[in-house]
Amino acid sequence: MTAYIRLEHRFARLSALGDASGILGWDQQTTMPLGASDRRAEQLATLAVLSHEILTAPETGDLLGTAEQGAAELETWQQANLREMRRDHAHATALPADLVEARSKAGSRCEMAWRQARADADFNAVAPLLSEVLVVERAVGEAKGAALGLSPYDALLDGYDPGMRQARIDPMFADLRAELPGLLAEVLDCQAANGPVLRLDGPFPTDIQKAIGQRLMGVVGFDASRGRPDISTHPFCGGATDDVRITTRYDEANFSTALMGVLHESGHALYEQGRPRDWLSQPVSCARGMTMHESQSLIFEMQACRSRPFIAYLAPLVREAFGRSGPAWEAENIFCAYTHVEPGFIRVDADEVTYPAHILLRYGMETALIAGDMEVADIPGAWNDGMKELLGLDVPNARLGCLQDIHWHGGSFGYFPTYTLGAMAAAQLFAAARESEPELMEAIGQGDFVPMLRWLRTHVHSKGSLLTTDELLREATGAPLDSVVYRAHLRTRYLG
Amino acid sequence: MTAYIRLEHRFARLSALGDASGILGWDQQTTMPLGASDRRAEQLATLAVLSHEILTAPETGDLLGTAEQGAAELETWQQANLREMRRDHAHATALPADLVEARSKAGSRCEMAWRQARADADFNAVAPLLSEVLVVERAVGEAKGAALGLSPYDALLDGYDPGMRQARIDPMFADLRAELPGLLAEVLDCQAANGPVLRLDGPFPTDIQKAIGQRLMGVVGFDASRGRPDISTHPFCGGATDDVRITTRYDEANFSTALMGVLHESGHALYEQGRPRDWLSQPVSCARGMTMHESQSLIFEMQACRSRPFIAYLAPLVREAFGRSGPAWEAENIFCAYTHVEPGFIRVDADEVTYPAHILLRYGMETALIAGDMEVADIPGAWNDGMKELLGLDVPNARLGCLQDIHWHGGSFGYFPTYTLGAMAAAQLFAAARESEPELMEAIGQGDFVPMLRWLRTHVHSKGSLLTTDELLREATGAPLDSVVYRAHLRTRYLG
Repeated sequence: MTAYIRLEHRFARLSALGDASGILGWDQQTTMPLGASDRRAEQLATLAVLSHEILTAPETGDLLGTAEQGAAELETWQQANLREMRRDHAHATALPADLVEARSKAGSRCEMAWRQARADADFNAVAPLLSEVLVVERAVGEAKGAALGLSPYDALLDGYDPGMRQARIDPMFADLRAELPGLLAEVLDCQAANGPVLRLDGPFPTDIQKAIGQRLMGVVGFDASRGRPDISTHPFCGGATDDVRITTRYDEANFSTALMGVLHESGHALYEQGRPRDWLSQPVSCARGMTMHESQSLIFEMQACRSRPFIAYLAPLVREAFGRSGPAWEAENIFCAYTHVEPGFIRVDADEVTYPAHILLRYGMETALIAGDMEVADIPGAWNDGMKELLGLDVPNARLGCLQDIHWHGGSFGYFPTYTLGAMAAAQLFAAARESEPELMEAIGQGDFVPMLRWLRTHVHSKGSLLTTDELLREATGAPLDSVVYRAHLRTRYLG
Repeated sequence: MTAYIRLEHRFARLSALGDASGILGWDQQTTMPLGASDRRAEQLATLAVLSHEILTAPETGDLLGTAEQGAAELETWQQANLREMRRDHAHATALPADLVEARSKAGSRCEMAWRQARADADFNAVAPLLSEVLVVERAVGEAKGAALGLSPYDALLDGYDPGMRQARIDPMFADLRAELPGLLAEVLDCQAANGPVLRLDGPFPTDIQKAIGQRLMGVVGFDASRGRPDISTHPFCGGATDDVRITTRYDEANFSTALMGVLHESGHALYEQGRPRDWLSQPVSCARGMTMHESQSLIFEMQACRSRPFIAYLAPLVREAFGRSGPAWEAENIFCAYTHVEPGFIRVDADEVTYPAHILLRYGMETALIAGDMEVADIPGAWNDGMKELLGLDVPNARLGCLQDIHWHGGSFGYFPTYTLGAMAAAQLFAAARESEPELMEAIGQGDFVPMLRWLRTHVHSKGSLLTTDELLREATGAPLDSVVYRAHLRTRYLG
C-alpha cells in the first residue's frame, strides 16, 4: 500500500469521526435532554481529541512527506486531496498542546459568561474573559502564522476560508464602504417614494409554516433521503455525509423568517449533498470554505428566492396555505416586504443592503484586535462610533451593540468577512448561471430549480476542494472574487 | 499518576466512545434518513475499531498488570473497577483480528439475508449464511474459552452476562421444564372456567397513547431531564450516560402493547439512570449484565404493572384518556386481558406463562449448536419438535418458527437464556422488596413508585458491577438466582 493510499485510509477515519461529531452536535441542538449536557461535551471532546491525535501523529507527517515525494505520479484529484491533507495537518500541528487546551477553555468560559452578559447588556461582565480569549487568539494567530508563513489574522482567516487573505479582502471591502452610504440613502429615498408596504398579519400556525418549508425544500432540490429538517433555537446546517440536517425556528407572528431561513439552510445543504461522491470520505470532497458555503445559502435565499419571479410563484402558495387574500398578499407587496430596507442594530435581522455595513464594522475591528491595534476596552466605543458612521444609528446598549454576536466570545476571529464575501460570490455565480442558462430565471418563476441546481452542481458542488475559491470562481464566472457584480445586483434590485 | 488512574482515564475515553455510539445507534433507529445507512455503518465501525484499538493496546495490558500488582492498596470500588477492566480486556484480546473481522462480516451478511428469508418464510435461503455464522461463533467461543478458561458456550454467555455459566442455568431451567407443562394446563383450565375476557376495542389514537405512556414514565420515576421517549419499529432502551433513550411503536388497534412496552423499557432506563454517579465513566458503574438488566424491565412490566393494584390504578386513567366505559373497561377485565395466557408461535408476543417455553427451546438448541451436537440443517426440525412438545403447537412455517428471531442470524448465541433468568431475578427482587417495604404494593396501587424505586436504587441500581449477579441477589434477597420464587409467582398470579 502506498503512503498516499494509507493517508486516504487515515483521513477516511477522520471523516467518520467528523460525521459522528456532526450528528452528536445536531442532536445536542435539537433533541438532547438538558441533563445530558456535561456528558455530551465529554463525548464531543473525546472525538475531537482522538481526531487531533490521528491527524498530528508522527506517522501522519511521515506519510505526508513520502506521498508528496511521489505526488507527480498521482492524478489531479489525488494531488488536490494530498494538498488538503497537508493543509489540515499544518493547521493541527501548528499549535502546541497547551495552546489548544487554553484556546478551548478560554472560548468555553467566555462564551458561557457572554450569554448572561448579553442578557444583562453588561459588557464589563464579559470583558476580562474576552481579553483572555483575545490573548489566546493572538497567540494562535502567531503560532499558525509562523507555521503557514502568514500574518496572524490571515492564519486565523485561513482556518475558515482556505487561501483567503486580508490583502484580498481590503480593496473589495473598501469599494463597498465607498459605495454603501450613498446607495443606502438612494434606496431609502426610493422606498419612501414608493409608499408603505402593507403588513402581512399573522398568526401563521407552525404546522403550516413547516409544510410550506418542506415543500420548498423539495422545490429547490433538497434530497430528503440524505437529510432532514428539524427545529432548533439557532438555525444551522449540520449533520454528516449523506445525512445533512438543517434546522429552523418558527415565529407564529411572522412566517417569512422561517421560510427564508429554510431556503438559506437548504442552500448550504445542497452544497453538502452535491459533494463529489468519488471522494466523499476525503478532504478534497469538502466544501471549499466559508465564503463558498455562504455563497450557496445566499444564492438561494437572496439571489433566487427574493427575486420577483420566485415571489410571484410563492405568493399563491402562501395565500392558499394560510388562507389569506387581499392587497397585502399580492406578489408585488410580498416582494416589497421581502426586500424592505431599514438600518437596524442587529446583524442577523439585517436586510441585504445594510448587512454589509455590519460586516465592515466587525471586520475592521477584528483585524485591529488581532494586530494589537485595538484592545477589548476599546470595543464598545469603536462599535458605537462605527454604527453611527455606517448606518447613522445610536446604539442604545451593548445587547443591541457589541454583545449581539457569539463569534468573538467563542474565539472566532476571521469568520465575519466570509458572510459578505459569500454574498459577493453568490451575486457573481448567479449572474454567470443566468447567462449560461437563459431559461433559468423563467424556470425559477415556475418553481423549477433544475437548471439552477444543475449549473451549481457542475460549477461549484462537484468541485469540492479541488480548486481555490478564486480558481473556482474564475472557471465558473470568468472572474475571481470581486464586489462589482454584487454592487450592481444591489443597484438593480433596490433602485431598478 | 498511578497505573490505575491512567487506566481510569483510558476507560473514561472508552465510555465516551460507547456513549457516542449509543446516540448514533438511537438516531439510526429513530431519525436517520435511509440514504445515510452506509455512512452510519462506517461511523459506528470506526468508533468500534478505535475502542477496540484502545482496549487491546499493549499499554492497556501493561497498565492492567501493574495496577493489579498494587490492587491491595485500592479501595473496594476501585478493585471491582479494575476487575471489570480486566474482564473487558480479556474478552477483547481473546480474539485475533481476523476472527473479529470474520465475525462482524458473517453476522452482517446473514442478518441482511435473514430479513428477506423471514419475509419469505424460506429457511433454506439463509441456512448457508447461518452455517458460516455458526462456524465463526464456535471459533469465537473456543478462542474466548481458551483465554478465559471456559467452555465455548460459557465464554459466549459471559459476554452478555458476566459470570453466568451453563452449569448454573441447567438445573434452574430443568425445574422450569418440569413444572411448566402442568402449570400451563392448569392455567388454561382455570381461564376456561372463568369465562372469556371482554375485548378492549379500538381505535386508540397514537397521540393519546403517547400521552399516557409519558405520564406513566413519570409515575415510575423516569428522569426526563436525562432521557427521552421516541418511536422506532423495534422498541429498545439505548442512548448514553445521562441520556437514556427509550422507544416504542404504536398500534391504534391495541394500546396495551405500547403501554406495557413503555413500562418495560422504562425499567431498563431506570437501571441506567440509577448507575452509581461516582463511577459513571468507569466499567464498574455499568449494569451487571443482561440477566440483571432484564430483571429491571420485567420487575416493572411484569411484577409491578400487571399486578391487580396497579391495574386498578391504571383502569380509570385509560378509560378517561380514551373516553371509554362499560364492563370491558373495569379493572378486573383489564387485568384478565393483561394476564391472558395462550400458547402462540411468536416469542415477543408471548404471555408470562408460556414465554419461558420459548426460551427453553432456544437455549437447548443453541447450547447444542455451539457444542457441535446440532447443525444448522437440524434447526427447523428441532424447532418444530420443541414447539410441539413444549406448547403443543404445530409450526406452520419458518416465519412463525425458527426464522422469527434475529439473534442467531446476527451472531448472538448465549443471549436467549438471560430473558428468563431476568424474569426469575425480577420475581426474587420483587418479593424481597415487598417484604422489606410493607407499603410498597399499596403505594403502587396509588401510582406511587417511590418505595419500589428507592429499594431498587439501594439494592440494585447503585451497585453497578460491584458484585456478581449471585452476590447482588444474595445481598438483596437472601438467595442467589433461582427459579423457586418465580415459579411461585406464576402459580399465585395465574392460579391464585
